[in-house]
Amino acid sequence: MKDRYLDFVNSPFGTSIARSLGLPRPEVLRRHRADRAEFGGMAAIGAGPSPARFDDLLAVLSAIGMTSVAHESAAGWLPVAARHGAMSGRFEPRVRESLASERVEALIFDATGIAHGSELHALYAFFHDALRSLAKSGRIVVLGRASAACASVAAATAQHALEGMVRSLGKEARNGITSNLLRVADDASFESALRFFLSPRSAYVSGQVVTIDSPSSAPQDWARPLAGKRALVTGAARGIGASIATVLAERGAIVTGLDIEAARDALDQTMLAIEDASPSGGAHAALVADITAPEAPADIAAALTASGGVDIVVHNAGITRDKTIARMTGEMWDSVIDINLLAQERIDGVLLEQNTLRDDGRIVAISSIGGIAGNRGQTNYATSKAGVIGRVHAMAPLLRARGITINAVAPGFIETQMTARMPFGVREAGRRLNSMGQGGLPVDVAETVAWLASPGSAGITGNVVRVCGQSLIGA
Amino acid sequence: MKDRYLDFVNSPFGTSIARSLGLPRPEVLRRHRADRAEFGGMAAIGAGPSPARFDDLLAVLSAIGMTSVAHESAAGWLPVAARHGAMSGRFEPRVRESLASERVEALIFDATGIAHGSELHALYAFFHDALRSLAKSGRIVVLGRASAACASVAAATAQHALEGMVRSLGKEARNGITSNLLRVADDASFESALRFFLSPRSAYVSGQVVTIDSPSSAPQDWARPLAGKRALVTGAARGIGASIATVLAERGAIVTGLDIEAARDALDQTMLAIEDASPSGGAHAALVADITAPEAPADIAAALTASGGVDIVVHNAGITRDKTIARMTGEMWDSVIDINLLAQERIDGVLLEQNTLRDDGRIVAISSIGGIAGNRGQTNYATSKAGVIGRVHAMAPLLRARGITINAVAPGFIETQMTARMPFGVREAGRRLNSMGQGGLPVDVAETVAWLASPGSAGITGNVVRVCGQSLIGA
Repeated sequence: MKDRYLDFVNSPFGTSIARSLGLPRPEVLRRHRADRAEFGGMAAIGAGPSPARFDDLLAVLSAIGMTSVAHESAAGWLPVAARHGAMSGRFEPRVRESLASERVEALIFDATGIAHGSELHALYAFFHDALRSLAKSGRIVVLGRASAACASVAAATAQHALEGMVRSLGKEARNGITSNLLRVADDASFESALRFFLSPRSAYVSGQVVTIDSPSSAPQDWARPLAGKRALVTGAARGIGASIATVLAERGAIVTGLDIEAARDALDQTMLAIEDASPSGGAHAALVADITAPEAPADIAAALTASGGVDIVVHNAGITRDKTIARMTGEMWDSVIDINLLAQERIDGVLLEQNTLRDDGRIVAISSIGGIAGNRGQTNYATSKAGVIGRVHAMAPLLRARGITINAVAPGFIETQMTARMPFGVREAGRRLNSMGQGGLPVDVAETVAWLASPGSAGITGNVVRVCGQSLIGA
Repeated sequence: MKDRYLDFVNSPFGTSIARSLGLPRPEVLRRHRADRAEFGGMAAIGAGPSPARFDDLLAVLSAIGMTSVAHESAAGWLPVAARHGAMSGRFEPRVRESLASERVEALIFDATGIAHGSELHALYAFFHDALRSLAKSGRIVVLGRASAACASVAAATAQHALEGMVRSLGKEARNGITSNLLRVADDASFESALRFFLSPRSAYVSGQVVTIDSPSSAPQDWARPLAGKRALVTGAARGIGASIATVLAERGAIVTGLDIEAARDALDQTMLAIEDASPSGGAHAALVADITAPEAPADIAAALTASGGVDIVVHNAGITRDKTIARMTGEMWDSVIDINLLAQERIDGVLLEQNTLRDDGRIVAISSIGGIAGNRGQTNYATSKAGVIGRVHAMAPLLRARGITINAVAPGFIETQMTARMPFGVREAGRRLNSMGQGGLPVDVAETVAWLASPGSAGITGNVVRVCGQSLIGA
């Protein structure tokens, strides 16, 4: 479904109408395009006392071709840059709104050394000086310390306080700017996450806190991090699932797209389009199966084994059967729980037991904001999607020994055929009640899945990442 | 500030106007009144397979004078009731909206035995049959198992799934009905929490998940559970703090109300009113101190020691200094962080170090929805209130050895002088964007604090309880 309002207020005529009437004018988000450089421009760097990750930060910025300027709070940045042979300079706060030409693309704050609430003042100083210099669709990333790595109650307190700052900045910034917090263990690499959150690929991901608690190695090629990996995507025929399959393939994976018999034609078309777009010709496959059938997990495992096992499992298949509980039938309850939750359990059970899912594998399960906040008319759906989150929390520690990660992605309002059928009022509320002032696209969910599926994301497990444009709705 | 809309649509004339225009008509919430029995009427009981807490549940219902009827999902309830000599019967689902005379006051579901997602069907069956029978301002309480007590991934998954159900029910039920989930360890008592969530005292607390993970003993007198306890309440002169001091005193505590010099008159009046209302005459005290002064923690400790130590510390003092970050001064940042967060650290530091806060003590820190979700124009406030939550998480395990609990209470939109000064649109949005369709009252926060401060709540620590009428807003 087209967001006509977004199109209108960003047309030349609509812009002037919106201005004169004082209407909100959501930004057209900058998303990844193959014909445009993923990264570029300048990052302004701020820091609290004793920032621990300047070297790592600088290495990532150099690798992705971003230059930097150091705010006065990050006095130690310039010597580090010089040691790395990287260009850098001093950030000069502007007195008024910055000219577009003076804008920076990212504000990055190293808060890892903050060990007391009084030291949070450095965040104030940096964002006070720098927020107005941030370009449209710019990025705010705060690097904090994982709570397990905090040496004192005061440090854990201050590190958790960062959440309030990052989420408030996301709500203030507007203009397509995202604001996210990475809480990193001392021995963990944040390159995969930092690349994602600086990239246009994270256009609709804001207000999120991601914990990275163990080391990981870099993929051989950051442009195709999934090269050599085999992926299963359930519900791949259409919408978000089709987008996930497409993006995983673009990022190098060989994808098995699964859907039910009734969606066979759409699935074939999706997989054919992926095949056509694959540089190598690929060996992508369509797999027709009813994931609720008793034999499905074994059949899926057999099909994957025949093609050499699987590294990435994306549980995307899901349905809604909305009714208030008094009007809901038992069949509506059971089918939603079974497809959205129990099928994931059964499939993972077989894939793990038979080692079809290889070591260092990735499981990404699609949850929903409804699973966090609950929703009227969706007791069945919200229960199933909350269960997905519970499963991610419970399984993550058990899978560590095999290097397998499991994370949940919780979409907010995403423009699909499903949301197009919503009543106007509900749809407009969903679109506007978030910091981006618009719905997300299936590709926004898909890019988030691809990031979590990357070899570089080995340190990220047990997380729930919302793709919701920092929706107002939560719990 | 009066909520004139709420008053109007619940007046005889306004009711008919609202009906004919299809306007929302938020329920006037039933709150605790000294001249009205706290509990009464009938609870309908539902259960999943192998419910573990029927005996404990029945004991609480008997103690508070509620009768029960058992839904067919709770077949084992009637024999347990018979064994306890309690009246009970079968719950008969109504085909249509129940007559008011047939309504039940509470729906209680024992989900502790649910160990697999397929068993969640029992929740559907119970609430499908029973939700329409629930009276206005009725109560939904689901008893689950704490995640640490779940024996399998499937059990942990299903137990977490309960969150989605309870929160969706809260959004569907309306009519002043609350819906909450207690996740209880096998050896933990839930009486204190169950009493609170069944009582009118929890009128504005909905959509919450409370974990109870260790045993506790009952207070000698549930009507005055704080008898013999000494409490400190900061920011006690007005608003929420005054209400906390009042409710703690009503519940039996001897209260030291603290506020700044500028609020001395209001503080004296508040403490005088409490003194007048105290059956025993009490020994309540007003303490004037600036909690940001370096000597304050020691002075406070000395004053408390002189009156025999303290059992309950309520960190309520807080300020707002709202501006977007670019317009905020450093002083606005620092003062909010210092008063709302660092003062709590300093005071607790001294009270714990000097053992002024006795073993089995209670710390309750007031946070805010802004600390969870962030807020535009409140980077300082949201950061401080997120820090409060971080501190609660970090301190809870360290205080267990001394039997001291620490929890956060996060108010949503509460009708105070502060919210009365908000612009009309912001105020109306805050009032309506929650499942109760209205703002809360200071007493709603105070009752929640008093519950957490009770000797019966020894098993509840490290929790964040929102008092927000299940606000839509979250993270």
